[in-house]
Amino acid sequence: MPIAAPSRLLLGSGPSPVPERVLAALAQPTVGHLDPWFGGLMEETAAALRRVMRTEHRATLPISGTGSAGMDAMVANLVDPGDRVVCGVHGLFGERMADALGRQGADVVRVEAEWGRAIPVERLIAAVDGSTSALFVVHGETSTGVCQPLDGLADACRAHDALLLIDCVTSLSGQRLELDAWGVDAAFSGTQKCLNAPPGLAPFTLGERAAERVLHRTTKNRSWYFDLSLVLAYWNAPEGAPRAYHHTAPINLIYALREALAIVEEEGLDARWARHARAHEALRSALAELGLERLAPDGEALYPLLAVRLPEDLADEAGIRRALLLDDGIEISGGLGPLAGRTWRIGVMGVGAEIAPQERLVRALAPRLGRDPEPAVDALRAGWAA
Amino acid sequence: MPIAAPSRLLLGSGPSPVPERVLAALAQPTVGHLDPWFGGLMEETAAALRRVMRTEHRATLPISGTGSAGMDAMVANLVDPGDRVVCGVHGLFGERMADALGRQGADVVRVEAEWGRAIPVERLIAAVDGSTSALFVVHGETSTGVCQPLDGLADACRAHDALLLIDCVTSLSGQRLELDAWGVDAAFSGTQKCLNAPPGLAPFTLGERAAERVLHRTTKNRSWYFDLSLVLAYWNAPEGAPRAYHHTAPINLIYALREALAIVEEEGLDARWARHARAHEALRSALAELGLERLAPDGEALYPLLAVRLPEDLADEAGIRRALLLDDGIEISGGLGPLAGRTWRIGVMGVGAEIAPQERLVRALAPRLGRDPEPAVDALRAGWAA
Repeated sequence: MPIAAPSRLLLGSGPSPVPERVLAALAQPTVGHLDPWFGGLMEETAAALRRVMRTEHRATLPISGTGSAGMDAMVANLVDPGDRVVCGVHGLFGERMADALGRQGADVVRVEAEWGRAIPVERLIAAVDGSTSALFVVHGETSTGVCQPLDGLADACRAHDALLLIDCVTSLSGQRLELDAWGVDAAFSGTQKCLNAPPGLAPFTLGERAAERVLHRTTKNRSWYFDLSLVLAYWNAPEGAPRAYHHTAPINLIYALREALAIVEEEGLDARWARHARAHEALRSALAELGLERLAPDGEALYPLLAVRLPEDLADEAGIRRALLLDDGIEISGGLGPLAGRTWRIGVMGVGAEIAPQERLVRALAPRLGRDPEPAVDALRAGWAA
Repeated sequence: MPIAAPSRLLLGSGPSPVPERVLAALAQPTVGHLDPWFGGLMEETAAALRRVMRTEHRATLPISGTGSAGMDAMVANLVDPGDRVVCGVHGLFGERMADALGRQGADVVRVEAEWGRAIPVERLIAAVDGSTSALFVVHGETSTGVCQPLDGLADACRAHDALLLIDCVTSLSGQRLELDAWGVDAAFSGTQKCLNAPPGLAPFTLGERAAERVLHRTTKNRSWYFDLSLVLAYWNAPEGAPRAYHHTAPINLIYALREALAIVEEEGLDARWARHARAHEALRSALAELGLERLAPDGEALYPLLAVRLPEDLADEAGIRRALLLDDGIEISGGLGPLAGRTWRIGVMGVGAEIAPQERLVRALAPRLGRDPEPAVDALRAGWAA
């Protein structure tokens, strides 16, 4: 019997809901990775990615792996053993990068903040010195729902010939992100958050200063699979030259990404960012009515991911999430690390950042918290009407 | 306008044709990577992979990347800098592994054969000594259409406490492969060859001796993404324990793989191997009528990939392939490395290993070679009737 996946409303930390249009693109017939038609689709996809990432970097492409593959690719291509790398750590994904950098043999300088807060940029800037090879920060910290300001980081990096590297897995297309204007040298993202495509690709971009390091390194990249000097001969073949086979691209996932990017561009990035902000604030008001207060302080919120504190007296939060999933068909995520059992993480991503799915969540959640849903629904509607 | 991929008959080196049933599974609604329903699907998928790989290794899973990601994962998990690794090289994929091993800092001992021939096993066995950490060979060399015999390799490895590692990207489910019976310690494959699933996953297996190295290593794996000690906490959580989040699995690709494996098992592995052998021989006879002789000698052929020599006087082989693709909608692959321009590589993979697609190819190809198709079609039919 063919598999039949259950219908879930995905309002957790990702994957986010994948629209029918994207699923239909995904299921288009597979073609060859060197097919000229597919080459055209690659060009379109890379061009759309550049627009959505607000960058003109030619080296912009989806890495053939999930968001975390983007992290591994960033480290393998841009960090050498012994490099001094300043790494912002204010949640799980910063911790993870610090781990990955350590595995690469980098001299990791951690600049930390409490989980649930942004890192003061002055502290990051102060840590960058003449011996620094790169500064890495997580723009959208999915473990805490915090958006890290990047003000001044690019200037500090340029002053010391260091690269500015970011993780924008959860922020891409859901919160203002201007890679070129903000001077970001390389960034990785994921497809299964605000882009509403299935998981499996890591949008990635490399500016000129970063590409210089990749293409002129004196040691071979430790990873064959993620070696961008090889991957780019396939993605960025010179005009008129054939694409050089590296690995077989995940064809159908690229169909889906292309369609998901088209949906983003039909809405427009500015409108999309504004909608995510509105959806975030509306849901925040509604959840506050249910006794769930946002973890991030004003000015530090990651709009696509609303992390809320649980009431101290809430018994069995995992049981509530499980019932919500299995009985109501709605997925939300629990906390991670020191926030496990103390927070929930609710996705506000793409088609999930709309009033209808949010109202469904609020109505399902309220009785499980022993609350009347109506004041929360009123707050939600007021937020959307604002 | 939503994307509409052209319909191609994929008879190249991969991707292979993806059946409607698999595309329909691919387009099932995305669910969360920690959803209990998905957990059940993971168990089913891993169990089916074990059966198709003829192994009882518990650590059997699809790595979240294409076939080459399986190679990188094998190296990152099982090879340490300084390890002496014997590497069979008789085509592009052996060269690629030698490159990957070198990047990892291994002491690579190459045992070579001419492209288009198998490596005599005695030469591989002779190269394994007491200081050898692992022996790697490509079972199905997709660049040449050669299947490498593995006889005696496991015994030699065990005698010296070395691991036997193989690439079975193109052979899996298309040619006899008995991982446990043949004593293979770890293997990687791809989904886009004989399994007829879209590219994007690398079926992978790790036996007890190999798992021992992964789980008890004294240095951290250089790759965070491919670190199987972390990935297996998600794929192989202990009975009753929750799956530990590592990265977001490529959910929809796993749906497709599950369905593709179901199709393999409906046919049965022995019948499937026999069908691939018959399809290979039938097509070989037909192409011989067109003046295209198989590169591999008898006894060394990789059934899923028929590489043929081109006539010396054939002008513009690339133009013929291009016309075949764009005018007839049929993809075949050119040669690689020293065989570029001198060979074609024709896939005989899964649903592509049937008489109807082969007859379509023969009828389209014959006039482009200035030949009458009928004798070739007769030979094809005779081969299938044999």
